[in-house]
Amino acid sequence: MLSYDGTGFYGWQIQPDRATVQGALLTAARPLFGDEVRVTGASRTDAGVHALGQTAALTARSGLAPAVVQAALNARLPREVRVVAATEVAAGFDARRAARGKRYVYLIDDGPVPSPLLRRYAWHVSRRLDVGAMRSALGSLRGRHDFSAFCAAPGRDADPTCHLRAVHVRRRRAIVVVAVSADRFLHHMVRNVVGSAVEVGSGAHAPDWLADVLRSRDRTRAGLTAPPQGLTLLRVLY
Amino acid sequence: MLSYDGTGFYGWQIQPDRATVQGALLTAARPLFGDEVRVTGASRTDAGVHALGQTAALTARSGLAPAVVQAALNARLPREVRVVAATEVAAGFDARRAARGKRYVYLIDDGPVPSPLLRRYAWHVSRRLDVGAMRSALGSLRGRHDFSAFCAAPGRDADPTCHLRAVHVRRRRAIVVVAVSADRFLHHMVRNVVGSAVEVGSGAHAPDWLADVLRSRDRTRAGLTAPPQGLTLLRVLY
Repeated sequence: MLSYDGTGFYGWQIQPDRATVQGALLTAARPLFGDEVRVTGASRTDAGVHALGQTAALTARSGLAPAVVQAALNARLPREVRVVAATEVAAGFDARRAARGKRYVYLIDDGPVPSPLLRRYAWHVSRRLDVGAMRSALGSLRGRHDFSAFCAAPGRDADPTCHLRAVHVRRRRAIVVVAVSADRFLHHMVRNVVGSAVEVGSGAHAPDWLADVLRSRDRTRAGLTAPPQGLTLLRVLY
Repeated sequence: MLSYDGTGFYGWQIQPDRATVQGALLTAARPLFGDEVRVTGASRTDAGVHALGQTAALTARSGLAPAVVQAALNARLPREVRVVAATEVAAGFDARRAARGKRYVYLIDDGPVPSPLLRRYAWHVSRRLDVGAMRSALGSLRGRHDFSAFCAAPGRDADPTCHLRAVHVRRRRAIVVVAVSADRFLHHMVRNVVGSAVEVGSGAHAPDWLADVLRSRDRTRAGLTAPPQGLTLLRVLY
């Protein structure tokens, strides 16, 4: 299991000449396991998105114990990426396909002035959000639906059906937290759902607008995509 | 009132050729008020220390309303520093001398592996801390005492007497929070108190050791100085 601060990375997936989390892991792993080592992640997080509990599978021929691999990787990784737990799994384990669900959290800094201590980890929305309206709107997304209206690029995900198991909105002083759990997520889905919920919370739309957008399956009807820095992958469920 | 992320600053106080918070404020204020503008802070926070509620007094000849000054400064300041509130005060107001107290919070990342999302804002202590022992030890510091044992440089503060009004320790999962409130603080006092409390929490000393250290008034008997990034100035009380 991995935690990372996504601020300085161009996302999870390896790219030539760009700092990515997968790339950092491979760079740390190659001196230990050779060039044949492979690393696959459960979630291809976007640039700027963080993780407290990303799951990745490292495939290599080695007799090293998981705790030794964890310590050796952490000794070579930049401080922005940490292996927080390591266990051995059966050969052929696919971290992405085996996942039965994921939990994300999205932080909104809802103070009048953006807090410097939150700028890397939250989206600043200066208009005071109506959390009750957001909760009501988001509640209508619960259950199994076609989420095409909240998908970045229609077609990238062959199956647009997701089962949204839970969605919660809480305010603690100036911080609004949106937590979502689903069996799977389409590309940009959490950020599009949060961007739309903020339009409800700021009064631009009534709460029942979100259910209308969902039913429309039309991406052009949903709100703006919330920026990446507010999003953190909390956990991958197996 | 100011918030800032102290990570990239050499502390509050202006220094030649170094990024400081006072320096950033003066740089932002001079185009608005001219070279005669002065900025004084209630607390000279150290390099790497953060603030959610530092108070600074800006002295200038101007007819601008406080809200206009706030917006104009925020437009020129780096994102790491924000003016979160502004009011007009009587001429001659001394932000430092008028302060009747300060509140600080110190964050400890007490997980087995340092969390990348906390590395700028917490001290990582991998040994599991006994928060009950820390609470018991810190409780003995409450009240009015000579805090010389926890002062960086004896003599810098002419009067070593402080009234510690409150000290709290809480754990929330892997995060341990130490909150302290006093009428005044000696240089490095919070970081020295926290460093010593962590020695109690990790079992190196019994809880009553801290009261012995306090009574000794001997800096060499206290624990290590906790690193700056865990410390945040919460509020200056007037």
